[in-house]
Amino acid sequence: MVGTSHPGNIGSAARAMKTMGLTQLVLVSPQKFPHQQAIEMASGAIDVLEEAVIVNSLKEALVNVHLAIGSSARPRGIQLPMLEMDKFAPHVASQRQDASIAIVFGRERTGLTNEELSCCDFHTMVPTNPEYGSLNLSQAVQLFCYELRKAYLQQNPDKLPKEKQLNLATVDELERMFVHLEETLLLTDFLVTDQPNKVMAKLRRLFKRAQLEDTDVNLLRGIFTSVHEMSKQGK
Amino acid sequence: MVGTSHPGNIGSAARAMKTMGLTQLVLVSPQKFPHQQAIEMASGAIDVLEEAVIVNSLKEALVNVHLAIGSSARPRGIQLPMLEMDKFAPHVASQRQDASIAIVFGRERTGLTNEELSCCDFHTMVPTNPEYGSLNLSQAVQLFCYELRKAYLQQNPDKLPKEKQLNLATVDELERMFVHLEETLLLTDFLVTDQPNKVMAKLRRLFKRAQLEDTDVNLLRGIFTSVHEMSKQGK
Repeated sequence: MVGTSHPGNIGSAARAMKTMGLTQLVLVSPQKFPHQQAIEMASGAIDVLEEAVIVNSLKEALVNVHLAIGSSARPRGIQLPMLEMDKFAPHVASQRQDASIAIVFGRERTGLTNEELSCCDFHTMVPTNPEYGSLNLSQAVQLFCYELRKAYLQQNPDKLPKEKQLNLATVDELERMFVHLEETLLLTDFLVTDQPNKVMAKLRRLFKRAQLEDTDVNLLRGIFTSVHEMSKQGK
Repeated sequence: MVGTSHPGNIGSAARAMKTMGLTQLVLVSPQKFPHQQAIEMASGAIDVLEEAVIVNSLKEALVNVHLAIGSSARPRGIQLPMLEMDKFAPHVASQRQDASIAIVFGRERTGLTNEELSCCDFHTMVPTNPEYGSLNLSQAVQLFCYELRKAYLQQNPDKLPKEKQLNLATVDELERMFVHLEETLLLTDFLVTDQPNKVMAKLRRLFKRAQLEDTDVNLLRGIFTSVHEMSKQGK
């Protein structure tokens, strides 16, 4: 982060980084740092702030960096090659494991100077609303870190959050449920025996779309059974 | 946004929305709103704040909504179907044009209650660092709005930011440049006449990789010419 004015943005950026699994923050001539506002906005990412490196120029920050990607808010008359927002992270992920890679963010109001941008290998621009493209600095950091995490997860799918898998009912279980349903609807006179097909087709589509689990099938069949029981008891 | 504690987050969320081309903000029982901090953080997105609708419950907010997607910070024991972070926006984009769609965000610390989540059709979780997943609320809003904008741009590629296209040099221009380069390097004795191929092959690769524009070719040939001129003048 180059020449950041508001220490709160440094703290928010540290938090944004950590939520996406990144930790190495380098500050080039921050205007106010360390600062209480940075600490407040960092929330649980104080460690990222504490380990932040402070240097005097972007050149110094990039000394051992192999690939530097500059974040730019708008197209400029610069010759620097552009990497689109959905391409920079896969490009980063395709580098050698030991490559040192920097994403470079400029000042809140004025961004990076042309000289600073020319130290970068590429620049990348968030595709914002052309009528209002004024992304907050830490929000831009969040978006870049998010794209990096997505690229990381693509290469390491075992790190993806595990989601509860549905225990889908089998076709056979569903078919038996539909028979049970049809019997029930005949019983209640909702269906008239001679042309049940249209209604059953609609109900089949509805329940197919719902991706029923086996427990759902049991639940529904329990309801159907209760209707049959009620009828037997002559209620 | 449901039950937001910090008005600054409402302002930041408004700004995040507007940068991604979204404007309809609904606040469910915000703790402090309107508020000076919201205005400050909204920056140029004051209009989104001013037009924000305030209601008392999420049910009320969703009355005319066809598809509600809840943002959840962590997997829960709920049955609500999950849409992955890179799938919810294409799903939104595939709905009818006149469908009313809501992305629902919970409270800063506690998120949405299970009852509120159960009003949603799906939930979506940002794939954060498992060791520190504490996304700031407005950063989460930024990520969701960004995914929505990407899906919008995918359907409307004419809205993509126009980038300067490279005026790549033709193969012929390059080949003539390589001849010129070889002549120059022979002149300076950098190349020995009997085996120039290895060096030239490396230089060819280098310049091919650089994707030279025709102006670059002219620039380089100007340099080569200056070497020839210097040699003629016997400097």
